Amino acid sequence: MSNPSLLILAGDGIGPEVMEEVKRVIGWFGEKRDLKFDVSEDLVGGAAYDKHGVPLHDDTMAKAQEVDAVLLGAVGGPKYDDLDFSVKPERGLLRLRKEMDLFANLRPAQCFDALADFSSLKKDIVAGLDIMIVRELTSGVYFGEPRGIHIEDNMRVGINTQRYTEAEIERAARAAFDLAMKRNKKVCSMEKANVMESGILWRDVVTEVHADYPDVALSHMYADNGAMQLVRAPKQFDVILTDNLFGDILSDCAAMLTGSLGMLPSASLGLPMANGRPKAMYEPVHGSAPDITGQGKANPIACILSFAMALRYSFDQGAEATRLEKAIEKVLADGARTADLMGPEDGTPISTTEMGDVILAAL
Amino acid sequence: MSNPSLLILAGDGIGPEVMEEVKRVIGWFGEKRDLKFDVSEDLVGGAAYDKHGVPLHDDTMAKAQEVDAVLLGAVGGPKYDDLDFSVKPERGLLRLRKEMDLFANLRPAQCFDALADFSSLKKDIVAGLDIMIVRELTSGVYFGEPRGIHIEDNMRVGINTQRYTEAEIERAARAAFDLAMKRNKKVCSMEKANVMESGILWRDVVTEVHADYPDVALSHMYADNGAMQLVRAPKQFDVILTDNLFGDILSDCAAMLTGSLGMLPSASLGLPMANGRPKAMYEPVHGSAPDITGQGKANPIACILSFAMALRYSFDQGAEATRLEKAIEKVLADGARTADLMGPEDGTPISTTEMGDVILAAL
Ligand SMILES: CC(C)[C@H](C(=O)O)[C@@H](O)C(=O)O
Ligand SMILES: CC(C)[C@H](C(=O)O)[C@@H](O)C(=O)O
Repeated sequence: MSNPSLLILAGDGIGPEVMEEVKRVIGWFGEKRDLKFDVSEDLVGGAAYDKHGVPLHDDTMAKAQEVDAVLLGAVGGPKYDDLDFSVKPERGLLRLRKEMDLFANLRPAQCFDALADFSSLKKDIVAGLDIMIVRELTSGVYFGEPRGIHIEDNMRVGINTQRYTEAEIERAARAAFDLAMKRNKKVCSMEKANVMESGILWRDVVTEVHADYPDVALSHMYADNGAMQLVRAPKQFDVILTDNLFGDILSDCAAMLTGSLGMLPSASLGLPMANGRPKAMYEPVHGSAPDITGQGKANPIACILSFAMALRYSFDQGAEATRLEKAIEKVLADGARTADLMGPEDGTPISTTEMGDVILAAL
Repeated sequence: MSNPSLLILAGDGIGPEVMEEVKRVIGWFGEKRDLKFDVSEDLVGGAAYDKHGVPLHDDTMAKAQEVDAVLLGAVGGPKYDDLDFSVKPERGLLRLRKEMDLFANLRPAQCFDALADFSSLKKDIVAGLDIMIVRELTSGVYFGEPRGIHIEDNMRVGINTQRYTEAEIERAARAAFDLAMKRNKKVCSMEKANVMESGILWRDVVTEVHADYPDVALSHMYADNGAMQLVRAPKQFDVILTDNLFGDILSDCAAMLTGSLGMLPSASLGLPMANGRPKAMYEPVHGSAPDITGQGKANPIACILSFAMALRYSFDQGAEATRLEKAIEKVLADGARTADLMGPEDGTPISTTEMGDVILAAL
């Protein structure tokens, strides 16, 4: 039997730097744990635009459809800010999500004990925090039609469409309930059903799906209140289920609570392929961080933890994923810190590669 | 000349309780500062629905159009959760905003020194915080058409439309720049121009309007990053300009940073009326808080500060507004605390009326 396949799309900014460390970790698992992967690499985002004039080449798209999992770094940068909307780096990422049909975006917001002091929130509010946000990723206002800018009565008008079918809501809800069953059995669904009909449908369908999960406690919250509650008392949540746009904002808010943005991974999962594995892409929650690109300052942990999620969700290697996560907890407990995890008076940070070194050593 | 007119719509839940204290404050200004108002009262939200079967009676709407300013308490409550969308308490509020054309929603997020400890954020992150959020309030996905739930291929589909004209963006932007000129001369505009064309138009129009305000520094931020930055380092902001839906979420997030949700007022302003005053409605940022309704626990300060905003923005009484705000700062510094401003071990809170008493005494 051939090895499972990985496509690495390192992308822009710090993407390639942090991905270097992931490659070393992948190598380690092949050598020491006999978990071998066939790894190929390609371009996405600005890097793809520079070479091909599009942020994702059709050949790359085809490859992504064939592999067992895609590992993505980050896309975007000021160099590409003035590009036309249709070829912006983000369009490459959005095309991958849409064409691979990766409807369930899993974004854990976890506060690492060793880093609880580093949050802008008080330690007791965030210590031990462990939320899983399930964001619908292939629909809503990101993809709804009609969209665009046109002229009406001599005036520009900008339009986007929030659109959800019950099938789209249902599959995202199932993903959230399934996860909750393996966690603390609580789902909080967030929308604006008080002002948006699409939110009413969201609430209704989630409530219907809930009937299949009698062991899970379901609550509903308006998204504005959700943002408040995340800041006020985030530990009240277990799994948060929300749509594409609210999920974008609420997951970034939740990520920042932990004080460890450079630490947070994500998984985007779709339907099962012929081999039973879900279509999948894994990427850090942080962006391309152009301000620190090429300086060896980037924290590779979010990207490495994304690979841990790949081990767990694509390759059924939960124990190996935990091994990797524990190694990372250990190096943090031992005091290893990249620049993003330090205040100005906290001494000298280690580099991206040095963080990779200590993680490999801890494994 | 007749007195300026106020329409009080106390609404639901704690709305009537906190509004009682506002009425006493209005009375004080009439008696002691010779600032007399003609005050009338009417129903909105669930209270209006209970009496009229609609969350805002046409007669009330007509009155609101005629007065110099509306003071609103809060709308909504679990009793009305199962009502049809078209008669939900929120529709009354949204109708007022839309028909009065209150396009500029001003939401200050201020951290009161005496309360800095009470935030879930670390004191140094929020002490002295003073942000003004300008939220567009009459357009966007709240009001865009088409909207609704319909059947397509035997499946329910929920649709809402995000729609902005350049005129709508322009007037909101002007409101933000005008405010910035009286503050620290910084505007940060937030949208998702990386994924939404309406966001591109937003960014373009704001940039064009900026040409008329060379003294103001303008920056743009994606709304997800905005949520992050609000949590990470909120003091980087002066005025934040954003659309209706992002404004709903980001302003609640910002409000919670201050730890003083029961303290935050808002003003919703429209075009000038014949007498030169803007159409205006003032309301606390907090909701109807059904869990504490009728127990004398509610904090009336947000609602009283909303009246202070009315003094400033509708009646050009900035000095009197400051007098009221200073009185509130003083009672807080002296230790007056309603239940929402206390931890479980902080002693006995004072009641809604007692808070009103000490504020009147401080005036
Ligand atoms: C880069 C951008 C298109 C993307 C999004 O808006 O979804 C990002 O913010 C994210 O959350 O993954
Ligand atoms: C009550 C609700 C309709 C309203 C909104 O969504 O605008 C509220 O959340 C607000 O922010 O004023």
